[in-house]
Amino acid sequence: MAAQDGKLANGADRIDFQTDPARYRHWKITIDRVVATLTLDVDEKGGLFSGYELKLNSYDLGVDIELADAFERLRFEHPEVRVVLLRSGKPRVFCAGANIRMLAGASHAHKVNFCKFTNETRNAIEDASAHSGQRTICVINGTAAGGGYELALAADQIVLVDDGSATVALPEVPLLAVLPGTGGLTRIIDKRLVRRDHADVFCTTEEGIKGRRAVEWRLVDEAVPNSKLEDSVAARTKELAAKSDRPKGEAGIALTPLQRRVEPNGREYQYLSVAFARDERLARLTLRGPDAAPPATAAEMVAQGAKFWPLALARELDDAILDIRLNELDLAAIVFESAGDSAAVLAYDVFLDLNRDHWLAREIRLKWKRVLKRIDLTSRTLVAIIEPGSCFAGTLAEVVLASDRSYMLVGTREADNRPPATLTLSEANFDWYPMANDLTRLTARFLGAEAPLDAAYKTIGTPLDAEAAEKLGLVTFALDDIDWEDEIRIFLEERASFSADALTGLEANLRFGGPETMESKIFARLTAWQNWIFQRPNAVGEDGALRRYGTGQKPVFDTKRV
Amino acid sequence: MAAQDGKLANGADRIDFQTDPARYRHWKITIDRVVATLTLDVDEKGGLFSGYELKLNSYDLGVDIELADAFERLRFEHPEVRVVLLRSGKPRVFCAGANIRMLAGASHAHKVNFCKFTNETRNAIEDASAHSGQRTICVINGTAAGGGYELALAADQIVLVDDGSATVALPEVPLLAVLPGTGGLTRIIDKRLVRRDHADVFCTTEEGIKGRRAVEWRLVDEAVPNSKLEDSVAARTKELAAKSDRPKGEAGIALTPLQRRVEPNGREYQYLSVAFARDERLARLTLRGPDAAPPATAAEMVAQGAKFWPLALARELDDAILDIRLNELDLAAIVFESAGDSAAVLAYDVFLDLNRDHWLAREIRLKWKRVLKRIDLTSRTLVAIIEPGSCFAGTLAEVVLASDRSYMLVGTREADNRPPATLTLSEANFDWYPMANDLTRLTARFLGAEAPLDAAYKTIGTPLDAEAAEKLGLVTFALDDIDWEDEIRIFLEERASFSADALTGLEANLRFGGPETMESKIFARLTAWQNWIFQRPNAVGEDGALRRYGTGQKPVFDTKRV
Repeated sequence: MAAQDGKLANGADRIDFQTDPARYRHWKITIDRVVATLTLDVDEKGGLFSGYELKLNSYDLGVDIELADAFERLRFEHPEVRVVLLRSGKPRVFCAGANIRMLAGASHAHKVNFCKFTNETRNAIEDASAHSGQRTICVINGTAAGGGYELALAADQIVLVDDGSATVALPEVPLLAVLPGTGGLTRIIDKRLVRRDHADVFCTTEEGIKGRRAVEWRLVDEAVPNSKLEDSVAARTKELAAKSDRPKGEAGIALTPLQRRVEPNGREYQYLSVAFARDERLARLTLRGPDAAPPATAAEMVAQGAKFWPLALARELDDAILDIRLNELDLAAIVFESAGDSAAVLAYDVFLDLNRDHWLAREIRLKWKRVLKRIDLTSRTLVAIIEPGSCFAGTLAEVVLASDRSYMLVGTREADNRPPATLTLSEANFDWYPMANDLTRLTARFLGAEAPLDAAYKTIGTPLDAEAAEKLGLVTFALDDIDWEDEIRIFLEERASFSADALTGLEANLRFGGPETMESKIFARLTAWQNWIFQRPNAVGEDGALRRYGTGQKPVFDTKRV
Repeated sequence: MAAQDGKLANGADRIDFQTDPARYRHWKITIDRVVATLTLDVDEKGGLFSGYELKLNSYDLGVDIELADAFERLRFEHPEVRVVLLRSGKPRVFCAGANIRMLAGASHAHKVNFCKFTNETRNAIEDASAHSGQRTICVINGTAAGGGYELALAADQIVLVDDGSATVALPEVPLLAVLPGTGGLTRIIDKRLVRRDHADVFCTTEEGIKGRRAVEWRLVDEAVPNSKLEDSVAARTKELAAKSDRPKGEAGIALTPLQRRVEPNGREYQYLSVAFARDERLARLTLRGPDAAPPATAAEMVAQGAKFWPLALARELDDAILDIRLNELDLAAIVFESAGDSAAVLAYDVFLDLNRDHWLAREIRLKWKRVLKRIDLTSRTLVAIIEPGSCFAGTLAEVVLASDRSYMLVGTREADNRPPATLTLSEANFDWYPMANDLTRLTARFLGAEAPLDAAYKTIGTPLDAEAAEKLGLVTFALDDIDWEDEIRIFLEERASFSADALTGLEANLRFGGPETMESKIFARLTAWQNWIFQRPNAVGEDGALRRYGTGQKPVFDTKRV
């Protein structure tokens, strides 16, 4: 539970990822035709936990939950928005980064999960630019330090005020003995293409870099005096807006509050049940298929809005995963089950495919892509259970492919007159949902081999029984009723008995075969090193830099290089 | 110093990486025409440190130092060898992996450095196969567990005895709460192309997998009964030998002992001086150019053998880097300097290029490639200092490009009548020495930009002064005599004041821009996670699995998933 990190300031016992602009305390959205401005004006007293103040536009998870929500809403609620401006509402400071007192007081698990979520939010900003035509410009009016500059790095363009004092900085190493771990080190090298020795100088220069040198070293795109700032931003905005393929004249849909009943041992959504079996250290998630056929037209999909089944389920699943990550640290495994009619599920994939050029259908596929990536990056054992009555087909089959293992029942059970379980692939499994490493889960599964991928492709639309699915390599084990209960019980018990950390490391390695991309490097190389450093006394020990920051006492370091 | 890990069994106060077959305690080399057999028969009493016994062919760093030496010697001393057989000298056990009591008692720094060296040794085996025509077959006669199986994974082919009991296993997660971190997780996925869910089952199955399933899951290439084992190995050997491009009828050269004088504050090699300035927490390495022109013919190079300047310096540099890594943990930086005649250095690059098809010239370039990679992976700040009298040209310029920062003096100094410092590129800098990520250091330096690479290429052979080198982006700072001393002193002092761990993480991220390969993934993703786990109480705490292994007491885990 979140309680381990002290008391949530709002008195709740769980961190909630649902919010809406009316409740924002730190961000303001204003929209002027095709341009949205997101203004960061952090409420110092609005920390997620008690015990620290969010000075100088520094942030904690609560600030980032609002940012993530704002970007989601811009995509769905405002298809007209082509450019997002990230700005500060405070004079002479853009953002001081993650709040240091929060970090110093947070548990290791919270630090890791906080960084993961902020990374996912930054990636979502880049995803909107790459796939949704929604570009971002960051306007830096003062200090942009640490996570503040890392937020800027997620934008397409960075404009820095050239006033002799505004700087960009990644002072984590000299100041705090940790890394710029929210993508910073990776993005300066792999996205901004800053030369590695310049990056070395930059990341060890506490006071940061300003003006012309920041441009020469590619840390920002432009440094302009205050007098020319608005003109420059307007010109860049116009240019980016002209290149966008966001739709014209389309109204958005409202991301209405999730239908969600929170209970002590789970949560009930419209299309998803979550049951915490805390004794067994697992959560059972049952994904439900649609209760109606897809609409006949895209316009009807828009009219359904947030109630449209694929979108509703994606949002619910996302919320459930985040809830488990942050609030149920003791659960070792997530067991995915499903219930419904596979044909009905596939009909929605067909609908989304037919309407693939419609902005909302595109957004929904991209939303599923992000949710599935969030699942890939969730440090719990992921298990898919495929039984009679399940509907793992197309998009839902992707959850099976995201799992560390899958078990499928052969045939039927006594006293159960439902037909045997099936698994069905659709086009969705071959193209729609690349992982962070830019491979589809099927390509990663059959790494370097074309034959099994071709064989799987030929089955599109055909319900596969357990033996066929196992033979095609789509499930781990096809088991008959005699072995079923024991095999799965023993596996889950055994899994819960292993070291939680070793499993995290194991799964993080096995899930991502093949090449790495900038995004996957952030989670693999950068995050893994940061997690290591988040364990080291030089950072988090009593005399470490994170703990001593702001006390006037210098940190004491173990000088051994490891 | 090594002493932190207990007493070295041989009574020395430093770990020495130099050995030769006459001194091996754990490996036996036998050569039969084109086939070398390396037999692992670990001397239980031959541990590097006192306090543990190397039972069941388990290994420590000392065993691996011999293995690394053996492979080096096969390349240089036995160009006729086309296939290396890795075998066990003990019945029913191939290798039990890294010794657990050694791991349990080792400092974090030693564990990390031990794993790094073993990884480099495995990579060198693969490098011999990919670039030297020297293939490896691993013959598993019994249990190959953990690091034992990881050694097998470095081979081109794995033959497992099918006797109902011989198994391959990666039991680290269930048994020890650590990862198969010597390439294991990466190689099963990215090299052997084991399906990720099969890999999940395999890595959580303590007892391992044998026979047919091991073949079906691609864990081994063949499982054969004892009666057919030798025939099968012979057939595979013959097949691989036929494909090799190793030379015929060429005699090898002897890797004679390094000329090395070890002193309390440094070591003096023939072409390399190492000075430890422990107060400043740095080592100064001065690389010396050749004292004679290159020989006229390849035959003369062979006659010079280990005295041939490029080979001698490469071996000396390798030894010095390893010494610093393992024995001088408190040094924050390695400062590279050079002394000699750039034209003479370049003449050797030209010689190696002209003779590029000669087996020994090829081996020497490959040796430099490995040494430079070892530098890239050394977790100390790397600094190049380019002053009058230096000879950073061609292959030696690569050391500058490997450095985190480089400083070059503009012009001359008072009372120094040597000409200004120059830096000169050769073909070597554009092709010969790819990093672990398969990019040359120049390509990584100018990531995504062709113009600066082209501009640099046009300067091949031209000595560049400081301003020219800075303008071309080849050095970080060109400084004149007025700023020189202070700038460098302040930089080195500042560097030494930062957290050692944060610097390790910073440098590991900035040095490797661009794509990842299997090799770089091993160090980035796998090693970084392993290092994290090597800090976690579930593994290394009093009640952790590593510490409790073999005590009969079960480990106690913090069950929180992070």
